[in-house]
Amino acid sequence: MSRRSLSLWFPLLLLLLLPPTPSVLLADPGVPSPVNPCCYYPCQNQGVCVRFGLDNYQCDCTRTGYSGPNCTIPEIWTWLRNSLRPSPSFTHFLLTHGYWLWEFVNATFIREILMRLVLTVRSNLIPSPPTYNSAHDYISWESFSNVSYYTRILPSVPKDCPTPMGTKGKKQLPDVQLLAQQLLLRREFIPAPQGTNILFAFFAQHFTHQFFKTSGKMGPGFTKALGHGVDLGHIYGDNLERQYHLRLFKDGKLKYQVLDGEVYPPSVEQASVLMRYPPGVPPERQMAVGQEVFGLLPGLMLFSTIWLREHNRVCDLLKEEHPTWDDEQLFQTTRLILIGETIKIVIEEYVQHLSGYFLQLKFDPELLFRAQFQYRNRIAMEFNHLYHWHPLMPNSFQVGSQEYSYEQFLFNTSMLVDYGVEALVDAFSRQRAGRIGGGRNFDYHVLHVAVDVIKESREMRLQPFNEYRKRFGLKPYTSFQELTGEKEMAAELEELYGDIDALEFYPGLLLEKCQPNSIFGEMMTCPLCSPWLLKRCIYKVPEPWHGCHFLDSIFPSSACDLGFNSHWIKYQAAFQETLKIRIHQVLCVLQHVASH
Amino acid sequence: MSRRSLSLWFPLLLLLLLPPTPSVLLADPGVPSPVNPCCYYPCQNQGVCVRFGLDNYQCDCTRTGYSGPNCTIPEIWTWLRNSLRPSPSFTHFLLTHGYWLWEFVNATFIREILMRLVLTVRSNLIPSPPTYNSAHDYISWESFSNVSYYTRILPSVPKDCPTPMGTKGKKQLPDVQLLAQQLLLRREFIPAPQGTNILFAFFAQHFTHQFFKTSGKMGPGFTKALGHGVDLGHIYGDNLERQYHLRLFKDGKLKYQVLDGEVYPPSVEQASVLMRYPPGVPPERQMAVGQEVFGLLPGLMLFSTIWLREHNRVCDLLKEEHPTWDDEQLFQTTRLILIGETIKIVIEEYVQHLSGYFLQLKFDPELLFRAQFQYRNRIAMEFNHLYHWHPLMPNSFQVGSQEYSYEQFLFNTSMLVDYGVEALVDAFSRQRAGRIGGGRNFDYHVLHVAVDVIKESREMRLQPFNEYRKRFGLKPYTSFQELTGEKEMAAELEELYGDIDALEFYPGLLLEKCQPNSIFGEMMTCPLCSPWLLKRCIYKVPEPWHGCHFLDSIFPSSACDLGFNSHWIKYQAAFQETLKIRIHQVLCVLQHVASH
Repeated sequence: MSRRSLSLWFPLLLLLLLPPTPSVLLADPGVPSPVNPCCYYPCQNQGVCVRFGLDNYQCDCTRTGYSGPNCTIPEIWTWLRNSLRPSPSFTHFLLTHGYWLWEFVNATFIREILMRLVLTVRSNLIPSPPTYNSAHDYISWESFSNVSYYTRILPSVPKDCPTPMGTKGKKQLPDVQLLAQQLLLRREFIPAPQGTNILFAFFAQHFTHQFFKTSGKMGPGFTKALGHGVDLGHIYGDNLERQYHLRLFKDGKLKYQVLDGEVYPPSVEQASVLMRYPPGVPPERQMAVGQEVFGLLPGLMLFSTIWLREHNRVCDLLKEEHPTWDDEQLFQTTRLILIGETIKIVIEEYVQHLSGYFLQLKFDPELLFRAQFQYRNRIAMEFNHLYHWHPLMPNSFQVGSQEYSYEQFLFNTSMLVDYGVEALVDAFSRQRAGRIGGGRNFDYHVLHVAVDVIKESREMRLQPFNEYRKRFGLKPYTSFQELTGEKEMAAELEELYGDIDALEFYPGLLLEKCQPNSIFGEMMTCPLCSPWLLKRCIYKVPEPWHGCHFLDSIFPSSACDLGFNSHWIKYQAAFQETLKIRIHQVLCVLQHVASH
Repeated sequence: MSRRSLSLWFPLLLLLLLPPTPSVLLADPGVPSPVNPCCYYPCQNQGVCVRFGLDNYQCDCTRTGYSGPNCTIPEIWTWLRNSLRPSPSFTHFLLTHGYWLWEFVNATFIREILMRLVLTVRSNLIPSPPTYNSAHDYISWESFSNVSYYTRILPSVPKDCPTPMGTKGKKQLPDVQLLAQQLLLRREFIPAPQGTNILFAFFAQHFTHQFFKTSGKMGPGFTKALGHGVDLGHIYGDNLERQYHLRLFKDGKLKYQVLDGEVYPPSVEQASVLMRYPPGVPPERQMAVGQEVFGLLPGLMLFSTIWLREHNRVCDLLKEEHPTWDDEQLFQTTRLILIGETIKIVIEEYVQHLSGYFLQLKFDPELLFRAQFQYRNRIAMEFNHLYHWHPLMPNSFQVGSQEYSYEQFLFNTSMLVDYGVEALVDAFSRQRAGRIGGGRNFDYHVLHVAVDVIKESREMRLQPFNEYRKRFGLKPYTSFQELTGEKEMAAELEELYGDIDALEFYPGLLLEKCQPNSIFGEMMTCPLCSPWLLKRCIYKVPEPWHGCHFLDSIFPSSACDLGFNSHWIKYQAAFQETLKIRIHQVLCVLQHVASH
């Protein structure tokens, strides 16, 4: 099996070339050195460095709340706000302690107020409209309008800097294989502390592959997922041609096949779309779904099957209510409903679990209808990088009494049908996933993914980890020991990088010490991941979507307690049988949802 | 010369087919008739009609501020707001009277407050995110995400209605040629009342062709201008390939040619892009610009030349300040600056002139930074239709002592260079344009455009004029006489349509009586045109754009007084010579603009 086929997140990443060697300008003493002043990252507090003449710069501090040559002097309101605002770590402490207090808060209107605050504060951390892209380190119409690019939160390291990371660190970045082997490779499986299971990992992988689709043809700065958000392109395809191949064009439904009396995605014979399987897998064994790489893992095809069944079930309900609707209206309305279901699950169960917060998160579009909030989405390259959570993957996969190696598990085309949806859900929800942060937890089968991400970040010239910490309002680390919270890895990092300010983005994220009882460190938990993820999930939903309490009845809150267990899936599978009492409510929801 | 070549706005409209005959359900007495209840447009106040079962409907009143089966019962706040809000005609009266009072207002902060109000109130009249499109009369992911479609403000007339316009009017719509001949064809030239000149008309045509580009291939519901706003695609092309052909790739500049010592757009030989010229015009006589149809009229190529010169001039200024910037950064930053200049001119001169307001309109992105405002743009089909302002066109074109017939003027490839920019600007600013509204003012050379728009609106099944009036908060007309304000045309309309509620959208707009001293009627002036136009022009401009008073120095306010005269253009042409005193200010602007 090729290395490429092992990649979980970006099967196409391996195509990356080595980064171009930066042209180094030596500071010859005596001769005035024309170092690009922006290489020093002089502008603080989100000020923007602009070159003037040959060796001058200006920091543009507009609307940063700061002034001065380097945007370091706070305006009065900024100073006041800074003085009153609790630190990120204190906020995190508050949100993860005092269970009984939060039980009270969650039962009152304070929950909504706090949820609105979470959404707006976090979302304000990322710029809207989007700013840079891999070809434009400055505001431009092209980076604003060309959705083929990933956007970027920080511009790249200027090409003419003395060192690869600006002015700090060594003239050459550490050998990436050595770095990965020494600091990322798993010695012994470290389990996720909050009981996260591998069903969660597969959900994450399935969910995120609708907006992370780096273009193999155009290169690492580009994405094929032009929707840039939760558009369910991984179910319906990222273009109309693919969607049409997957649709039955009857009653709004998707094509399917029945195997062993159960509904599964159609084969590639039945729905002729490109799927990425190893050579030799015959078309009738390839399942055809929205995302072309989902044949890679039974866990991905499992979720594809669940959502396919859900789609066709909702179509039936809608058709009963609206017999005059044509196939297109049934299809489109069902797609909207499934987008809503997805967002609901992601915010109220997935993010809830990741956050560890006692505040009960809530998906209610109406929360933001009176807030200043831009709904535009653009996936950032940094978001893509940080979401490579491969330490989640275990050493092998346990289904019932059987243990599957990576070699047996990858591209296993019979497992899903052999076991069936319920048995696989049960198995995956029993097996613990690995801890993401804290270092040294990549199974060697997936280590190459980390290598590829680091190589790509060098090609794309991502700024240092500490610059990203500053960008998101966190203090930069002053030493590697402060970063890792221990000495051994810190010493190795010191030797590899030479300077904490030269540490790269992805290694920084994975080697930062984990927060107490958390699956990763401060930078991943707090400012970085959540705003992007939340922002992905918030649309200005068409108004009727909140007529009833949207989908509360479909996904009972009892399913939230374990982060991610199989309740809601079983519930859904057994929907008609077990919860007829709620059918009135559900139909009420669907009517409202469908009424546009 | 073919009729197609005469089309000013949509050279491809002629491809339209006749509308499909609607399937009429006869209400056979005694037999229960399954008429689609939504054909009666039962839902008021922006409520949405949804069919249930075979012959039931529900109005979705969510967030309309109304309740009841047809969304007619105002909530208390709605009632209060309605009671306090002045009528549109009273507002218009206030804004167009009391010159001295407005002089005072314009000098104070009240100007900003009112301008913010204008922007938010008007923009709230159109939905964001966009709602329907020509294939989806209901909220859907497809209509939300597929930018190839024009959006639609109202869904189409259901296909299964008793009459073409719903339930009112005759079984067949009037013959479109007869309609145009009787009510739209010019008898005698009616001049625009506010002194609007044909330079204004050409500016309108040039400006709007960046976002009105109906796709000939895909049909009338689709647009090629995927930017859906003021992206200057008419200067830079609507796709990257075209842009690259037009660029010099040196110092950020566009390609150009020098003729008679003056700068003009390059020939198609020099910049190999498709331009629509009649067969027989050799490539070296075709000028190559962003919009492929701009060879049609010397007035369009005139503005293309002006903007080309402006682009290259700004590039020079930027390069002087930023010698380290590469071609791409110079090009992209200049594009942003020209977008800003365009918006400035459109709001502060073009819309100002159209509105007739004494309130001095202002372009300042910062006005909206604290307001709830969605910056997403999507061009609406109705906006496209209403913007067919061909009555502006005179009977012939006067340049100096020479009179040009349409036959001599259209596709005249030598006129621009023979006369030069300044002489043409002077000539076009001296000739009066025609009044748009009030009927009977289409020169017979452009009458076919009106015919095509009406045909398209039938194919696209646009709802009646009165439904659009209701949608924009205006009272529906109760008789044709109330619409036209006279008897003769009203009687002809009565005979043609049979019912005021069956009057079509575009004829309604053009036959509505003009407001006092205005170029068109209430529906075009007040709620319909402005929100779309304003919304087009408002971006969340990158923050540094308002560091100095943006471009105040480039376009002095004295240029606003005549609606549209040649001052600003002459000023620009003579920039370096005549106003060196202001160069410091301009450079300050450019620095700020350029600093992202």
